[in-house]
Amino acid sequence: MILDRLNTPDDLKKLSFEEMNTLAGEIRELIIKKVNTTGGHMGPNLGIVEATIAMHYVFNSPVDKFVFDVSHQCYPHKILTGRKEGFTNSDKYHVYTGYTAPEESEHDLFKIGHTSTSVSLACGVAKARDLKGEKGNVLALIGDGSLSGGEALEGLNNAGSMDSNIIIVVNDNDMSIAENHGGLYDNLKLLRETDGKAECNFFKSLGFDYCYVNEGNCVEKLVETFEKVKDASHPVVVHIRTVKGCGLDVAEQNKEAFHWILPGTLDENKEPVGFVEDYTSLTRQYILDKTKEDKTVIAVNAGTPGVFGFDKEFRNTVGKQYTDVGIAEEHAVAYCSALATCGAKPVFAVMSSFIQRTYDQMSQDLCLNNSPATMLVYWGGISGADATHLCTFDIPLVSNIPNMVYLAPTNKEEYLAMLDWSLAQNEHPVAIRVPNVPLVSTGIEDDTDYSILNKFKVVENGEKVAILALGNFFELGRQVKKELGINATLINPCFMTGIDEELLENLKANHDVVITLEDGELDGGFGEKISRFYANSDMKVLNYGAKKEFTDRVPLDELYRRYRLTKEQIAEDVMKLKQTATV
Amino acid sequence: MILDRLNTPDDLKKLSFEEMNTLAGEIRELIIKKVNTTGGHMGPNLGIVEATIAMHYVFNSPVDKFVFDVSHQCYPHKILTGRKEGFTNSDKYHVYTGYTAPEESEHDLFKIGHTSTSVSLACGVAKARDLKGEKGNVLALIGDGSLSGGEALEGLNNAGSMDSNIIIVVNDNDMSIAENHGGLYDNLKLLRETDGKAECNFFKSLGFDYCYVNEGNCVEKLVETFEKVKDASHPVVVHIRTVKGCGLDVAEQNKEAFHWILPGTLDENKEPVGFVEDYTSLTRQYILDKTKEDKTVIAVNAGTPGVFGFDKEFRNTVGKQYTDVGIAEEHAVAYCSALATCGAKPVFAVMSSFIQRTYDQMSQDLCLNNSPATMLVYWGGISGADATHLCTFDIPLVSNIPNMVYLAPTNKEEYLAMLDWSLAQNEHPVAIRVPNVPLVSTGIEDDTDYSILNKFKVVENGEKVAILALGNFFELGRQVKKELGINATLINPCFMTGIDEELLENLKANHDVVITLEDGELDGGFGEKISRFYANSDMKVLNYGAKKEFTDRVPLDELYRRYRLTKEQIAEDVMKLKQTATV
Repeated sequence: MILDRLNTPDDLKKLSFEEMNTLAGEIRELIIKKVNTTGGHMGPNLGIVEATIAMHYVFNSPVDKFVFDVSHQCYPHKILTGRKEGFTNSDKYHVYTGYTAPEESEHDLFKIGHTSTSVSLACGVAKARDLKGEKGNVLALIGDGSLSGGEALEGLNNAGSMDSNIIIVVNDNDMSIAENHGGLYDNLKLLRETDGKAECNFFKSLGFDYCYVNEGNCVEKLVETFEKVKDASHPVVVHIRTVKGCGLDVAEQNKEAFHWILPGTLDENKEPVGFVEDYTSLTRQYILDKTKEDKTVIAVNAGTPGVFGFDKEFRNTVGKQYTDVGIAEEHAVAYCSALATCGAKPVFAVMSSFIQRTYDQMSQDLCLNNSPATMLVYWGGISGADATHLCTFDIPLVSNIPNMVYLAPTNKEEYLAMLDWSLAQNEHPVAIRVPNVPLVSTGIEDDTDYSILNKFKVVENGEKVAILALGNFFELGRQVKKELGINATLINPCFMTGIDEELLENLKANHDVVITLEDGELDGGFGEKISRFYANSDMKVLNYGAKKEFTDRVPLDELYRRYRLTKEQIAEDVMKLKQTATV
Repeated sequence: MILDRLNTPDDLKKLSFEEMNTLAGEIRELIIKKVNTTGGHMGPNLGIVEATIAMHYVFNSPVDKFVFDVSHQCYPHKILTGRKEGFTNSDKYHVYTGYTAPEESEHDLFKIGHTSTSVSLACGVAKARDLKGEKGNVLALIGDGSLSGGEALEGLNNAGSMDSNIIIVVNDNDMSIAENHGGLYDNLKLLRETDGKAECNFFKSLGFDYCYVNEGNCVEKLVETFEKVKDASHPVVVHIRTVKGCGLDVAEQNKEAFHWILPGTLDENKEPVGFVEDYTSLTRQYILDKTKEDKTVIAVNAGTPGVFGFDKEFRNTVGKQYTDVGIAEEHAVAYCSALATCGAKPVFAVMSSFIQRTYDQMSQDLCLNNSPATMLVYWGGISGADATHLCTFDIPLVSNIPNMVYLAPTNKEEYLAMLDWSLAQNEHPVAIRVPNVPLVSTGIEDDTDYSILNKFKVVENGEKVAILALGNFFELGRQVKKELGINATLINPCFMTGIDEELLENLKANHDVVITLEDGELDGGFGEKISRFYANSDMKVLNYGAKKEFTDRVPLDELYRRYRLTKEQIAEDVMKLKQTATV
């Protein structure tokens, strides 16, 4: 194998084009095997193999600096920068992360997984170089959907007016995660169709010099162009046309499905997964029903429809009652706010990690205007995810915005009742944290009136200890009660944006300990509001949730133990408190 | 006066062009007089008089919908939509807000003051119209700097691919708040110079039909073009060239200074304001000194240099060690993160209200990468500001992000020592909440080692009651101590991102009440962390700060009383607690 001879990018520079083409095939094979074993980003990495080889051939990393956007397209880069064993040796498949990681290599500048960051970061890298009087090229590799995010667009506007070297490689695979949305992509199409010659050019309009490479999966053509722009004294865009999933037929033909795959997807004898109802399928069906009933109901998402079950069948069925804004979460929130203000019923589905992009839009466009839009927050909770995709922060982020109503359902019937209420009402911006646990059904319709805000539900009336078990952690609350072995009160708070002062006040009569359980960061979260309420009283409060920290692929059970979130640990704490305190 | 005949936009439609030109003069005169009396946005409103008249002449508000960006350029619109008495009658100068406000008029759709929101909102308005099968035009009026924000750019990308009526009026006055920055503005210049005919056209590249009006302060020309695009079945940009400050010589010649003015700026006998040292002038001088010492120190801001004292003299002096990214806060944070990662020393100055735009960039680009950038957060605190510009939310927003160090200095020497430490260290992203109170100087150099994180300072050692008085509210803490008339402990926490567990633990020995004082929203803030710490103990805690709410021009002293933030109210609460509780 050619790859056997490669340990650093320098080794690559000795290869012929023929050898590099062979190398591309070797890399592709490794990626297919590894990703099919561990799961991961298949299509993006297969598409960017030749460009990565050409970048490392022409430029001199780490003196020249590469900034990867999204950074889920960095697998070939990892293979070429001393980390090939993470792909050749199945025992080491999990050693390296799926994103750039400075702790792994001097060739990785930033730990990045959210989209649209590379151009702004590259501007900073370039400016630091200039301030320090250093030399070298700075490259940002963007594309695969990430071009449409506000941060990227702000970055391009600034990069285009820099007066020194910065090279933006736009990986145009004619796809976002799903299909492309937005006028910009029509311009990319025009540029592809005119071999880059169309006068109306988005990048030129922002001040960039511009090159087009139609054969973006050909090392030789890429090298030719990179050689030309190397050491440019001004901002340049190199627009390369690549094929997402290149070299794997099924991935080329099913680009959306093969953006990211589960382990074993390519295995011939893989058992088809049977239908299991979960909160995602439930939501999908709910929206299908609602859009049929009411022509003003509209499902909105920002570039990741697959996560929410908004598959092609769904999209075809709801037609105009669906908007994928592309990766543009800020726009999505403002868009929904206006839809709601004007009497439509938008439902914006968004992942907890990406709602982080929309604080100001939630505050100003949505909540200040009290627009009755519905936001569904998916995947919220503590997890073993990469540090770049944690979903631990949405409760502090969303709950402290005035006027927002943030709900935490604990079962199917409650969730559906909250959805019904949210879509029917005209008073409040509502976010619902879609449970991130297996579906629980009570079988009994929930007739709660959610227009009475901040009313907690006493599920089991008891004494001495009250357990406030929020959303995902409601079942944990039940277990803690059992573990305690006493007749504790079990409460489902439902609301995260306020507290039930009357109920909390009444608890004082026959309780001396209150426990709060929340599946998210404690700092700024729900439990602290309870602690504040009781802070001037004799009630003892114990808050459980995640520590304020970025964790990186730490197994969930390890995190639970770290945060003392097992039923045994919690019961132990309560017992200890009861022994030592005056309660 | 023509204006006497006008009460609704319908009345405008009966006027001749000559009468509308006269009307423009009348409106201009009212704005000059009113703004010079109350203070406010002068240049933007003088520039947009004719365009507003033309919009209301051609279109049919509120059936046709206008969405104002920034919305500080809505004064002529208010005059034309039934609110002229707010400009003609000096007794009513304060009746109407300086921004669009739905509670004032059916012609105002949204309460908006942050920039770059109009296009996304207009997309939602247009889509709601289409879903409901209604007719009518939807217009967004953007410009005056707001075009460069990520939300606007995401919005333009989406608007450009809509398949129905949406009209974006781009008010190009060749200025942001200060001068323009970014490649996009070079394209606007090219379009101005070619009378809109250049093929390389940013708006066309995003899919818009495009019209240019060179005489954007001529009602007739504007009407002619608006008539053409009215009822367009597709997205259109009308790019109008206006003169910021039009009709007031001094404002035309000093566009930046006259963007927003203080009361009396035009008065001939106005006393010149003498130099008073404050935290802004102190920061300005500090940065001037540092940039001279170290060529890698760089001041960054996002389109509002005047707020930070980054005037022309400052900019000329620091030269390349200064970047104004334009209104693009997300880019600014990522840019600074990369600068810091690569060994430069960025100092990003930003207002509390606008840091709201950067949560994800602070979390992902900055804190996840532990980049040692310095952010200076101005104007943080409770205020009588407009609901659109509150600065009450930065403590919850910033403090709960892992790895961030958020500091609250209480005097000049402490602030300078924190700045020194932040610029010298290489370990942490640091934000400093620049005191928003008159400058206090101890005269004694602060030699605290801030690398020991979360170490609170005991300023006065006492017993029974401990007062944790944060940043702006440190002096209030002193007053509360005096009011209590006991030997209370006075603590300056300095850090908002963590707690001094050892100190808090030790307080238990001879204190039974802890008071926290913070100049910001209580929910998710500093005090709740203290309440959580003591929640399982006998310590009683009282948290003081702002309620979670949007307030709108409520006088500061009224807010202080509402939140029980006067020294008398606090002392009363403590006394009451001591009497009723077992302490």
